[in-house]
Amino acid sequence: MSERPATLDPDVNEDHEALDEDYVLTAAFVEKVVDAADDGDGMRLRSLLEDLHPADVADLMGFLTAEHRGVVVLWLPPELLAETLPELDDGIREEVLERVAPGTLAEALQELDSDDAAAVVEDLEDDQREKVLAAMPATDRAAIENSLGYAEDTAGRLMQREVMAAPLFWSVGDTIDHVRAQGEDLPELFFDIYVVDPHNKPVGGIPISGLLRAARTVKLSDLMEPVNAIASDTDQEEVAYVFEKYHLISAPVVDAAGRLVGQITVDDIVNIIQEENREDILRLAGVQDEDRGSSVFEIVRSRVPWLTINLATAVLGASVISVFEATIQQIVALAVLMPIVSAIGGNAGTQALTVTVRALATRELNSSNAPRTFWREFVVGGANGMVLAPLIGVAAGLWSGDWRLGGVIASAMILNLIVAATVGVLTPLTLSRLKFDPAVSSAVFVTATTDFFGFLIFLGLATIVLL
Amino acid sequence: MSERPATLDPDVNEDHEALDEDYVLTAAFVEKVVDAADDGDGMRLRSLLEDLHPADVADLMGFLTAEHRGVVVLWLPPELLAETLPELDDGIREEVLERVAPGTLAEALQELDSDDAAAVVEDLEDDQREKVLAAMPATDRAAIENSLGYAEDTAGRLMQREVMAAPLFWSVGDTIDHVRAQGEDLPELFFDIYVVDPHNKPVGGIPISGLLRAARTVKLSDLMEPVNAIASDTDQEEVAYVFEKYHLISAPVVDAAGRLVGQITVDDIVNIIQEENREDILRLAGVQDEDRGSSVFEIVRSRVPWLTINLATAVLGASVISVFEATIQQIVALAVLMPIVSAIGGNAGTQALTVTVRALATRELNSSNAPRTFWREFVVGGANGMVLAPLIGVAAGLWSGDWRLGGVIASAMILNLIVAATVGVLTPLTLSRLKFDPAVSSAVFVTATTDFFGFLIFLGLATIVLL
Repeated sequence: MSERPATLDPDVNEDHEALDEDYVLTAAFVEKVVDAADDGDGMRLRSLLEDLHPADVADLMGFLTAEHRGVVVLWLPPELLAETLPELDDGIREEVLERVAPGTLAEALQELDSDDAAAVVEDLEDDQREKVLAAMPATDRAAIENSLGYAEDTAGRLMQREVMAAPLFWSVGDTIDHVRAQGEDLPELFFDIYVVDPHNKPVGGIPISGLLRAARTVKLSDLMEPVNAIASDTDQEEVAYVFEKYHLISAPVVDAAGRLVGQITVDDIVNIIQEENREDILRLAGVQDEDRGSSVFEIVRSRVPWLTINLATAVLGASVISVFEATIQQIVALAVLMPIVSAIGGNAGTQALTVTVRALATRELNSSNAPRTFWREFVVGGANGMVLAPLIGVAAGLWSGDWRLGGVIASAMILNLIVAATVGVLTPLTLSRLKFDPAVSSAVFVTATTDFFGFLIFLGLATIVLL
Repeated sequence: MSERPATLDPDVNEDHEALDEDYVLTAAFVEKVVDAADDGDGMRLRSLLEDLHPADVADLMGFLTAEHRGVVVLWLPPELLAETLPELDDGIREEVLERVAPGTLAEALQELDSDDAAAVVEDLEDDQREKVLAAMPATDRAAIENSLGYAEDTAGRLMQREVMAAPLFWSVGDTIDHVRAQGEDLPELFFDIYVVDPHNKPVGGIPISGLLRAARTVKLSDLMEPVNAIASDTDQEEVAYVFEKYHLISAPVVDAAGRLVGQITVDDIVNIIQEENREDILRLAGVQDEDRGSSVFEIVRSRVPWLTINLATAVLGASVISVFEATIQQIVALAVLMPIVSAIGGNAGTQALTVTVRALATRELNSSNAPRTFWREFVVGGANGMVLAPLIGVAAGLWSGDWRLGGVIASAMILNLIVAATVGVLTPLTLSRLKFDPAVSSAVFVTATTDFFGFLIFLGLATIVLL
């Protein structure tokens, strides 16, 4: 009977130092791998790696330099290599794939479900892809080519072809007997049985715990529940939304004629959800596409476009200031205070923007509540202004000794916070209505607007009131 | 045989107008509900609502005003009300709960799994909670009280007590017979069978598709695989990480002595992941806690603290400018150009910050790669500067006709982008090392620093070079 501590991962028990209590590889373990790689000690490397979970091998790769990754890849057992490939970040995967011989890769890929194998093959360079596919058995090759026939980021690409289907007229007993006899051809893991009509169209689903609970004589048609079939051309973000909303564990995928062609399981969906969230978070900050394997050049390429656009909008803001050079010449205090108005406007705009982008992403916001959401943000903008304006107004008045200046900055603050709220909610709503991704370009437009109006309102009011 | 279109949700077929093709309630449907609520037409309301999925009812609630929600709640069938409660946003759930009589609620909660029922009960006001618990049968009450005994946001609170466990010595046949006989006491859905030793400690797990595949005579001990047992006091974020990393569908939860006390399933984890992502996205933008049910007052309370802190840091930036008032008086062009340096610094700092916060959240970043990550960001900061500095230097030179001013802003840009990269990566790393949430306070510190140094470097250089 096992006496291992129940709360620890098995890997920890096999190599006590691989993972810390948070299931993260320890620095000490990574160091050991680095040392073994530096020494070219293949046997030591293999003994360190062979008991790791593929997800931990993938994490390890992320912690290593490209050079060390190259050594580690050579000493990974083939099945472990295969199972690790789908877990890797895109950049690292491409780099690793370049180092593996086509024959080794072809062998490794046969260990994987068709969706995972296809995800790896799609990352190969054209000539390597041809070599790898040529080295695979015809059926595996056909499965992968079929999968790659679906557009990227669709249900068809995401699904595995292996699926447990049963005809309407079967009983629970028939189904269990079929699984026992045909287990090899079924998916390694499945959670629902799809009941199909004679045209192979799914007409119902049965969670297998429900199948286990029922007597052998019960007909599947009496047990089945309605099922959410997913069209193979559905975008993966849409698929994730349906899984999340209806708490699905698996769902059948159907072709244009409604025939069952595969299944998607929730573990793949969790990855999609994290990918989409990552994209949203990074895009809101103006980071396009990079991961921990990216080189400095790739990172700069991912971030400079955003900074350049912001440079252009900052110049636009500066051009507003230049209109008021004469005013500033007379009252230099304006130059001191003006960034406060634009900065707080930018912050408030970003708040409204982020809440709106998130609500759009989770579909909590649509045309039926958009007007109400807009008015609420509008009122919030004004209310925020009422709270902050007295603070900055009094501070500016005390500092400058000119209460009219305090009044000008307080008024400008209120107006710019209303601008911020308005543009923060309208920009993503408009982009989304026009079918653009609201996360990408909203932030730059919002801060450009709050800068522009922040300077314009403050310096304009000052020119009118103070000169 | 069913002829309904396979790609549509069953709800759509029962009420053709409830959902659009994206599984979102149509504005037309929401309008119908509003009209029926305005007319006080209970029968019409019930017929509109009764065939909706609980997740769609929850969505509907989000699209309605508080007043309309009050009417809708009265006409929801009790079981549908029960199943809808766990799906609601916190704010709306609290409001709805206040409108339901304790007896009705007690009855409704008995329909739910223990984890869902506890999640609802924890939101009740003290006196209402007592009344509801008193109205429930003793066993249901005990299950809920037990669940509430675990700290919020832990595995114990998240788990359901119902679990499918089997002793080590059972065969596949024994297990299937047990499920058929005891189906009522088992969880409504389960995906893994936990094999337990005589002390009720989980020693292995078997996916039920594996059980189905095996012959009746096979011993569970020959079929089981190592299992990731989760301690009941584990934080939910940690639980989500383990599920995501190892692609788990369910996991056993154990008490301090390692005994099986419940299970967590992946559908609950998907919600946690979305909740944590939502928190991270909103916190990065300085939004504390609000949802679509929040009032204007709650939203202002959620956002003003951030704006106030930013107001303080903006004043700090302004104080740097005020040191250079004499310089600005002589060269007003500096006032025009200085916001450009600080704005681009703020953008670049936010990029580095966001990438770092995300990598920390997904545990891609830890002590073994922190120094490398820091140096990479440092180089990226310099490289970004090398790209952008010539652009702004030439533009400023042309505009002002003073090439020394162009040189000053170009140099200041490079230096501030290095500051931005450094502070963008070091701030979240430090906060995380000190066990603070890096998403919360990093952004304000980063932009405060890039403002401060942006003004200081630019105006300082200008004073030295140009005067």
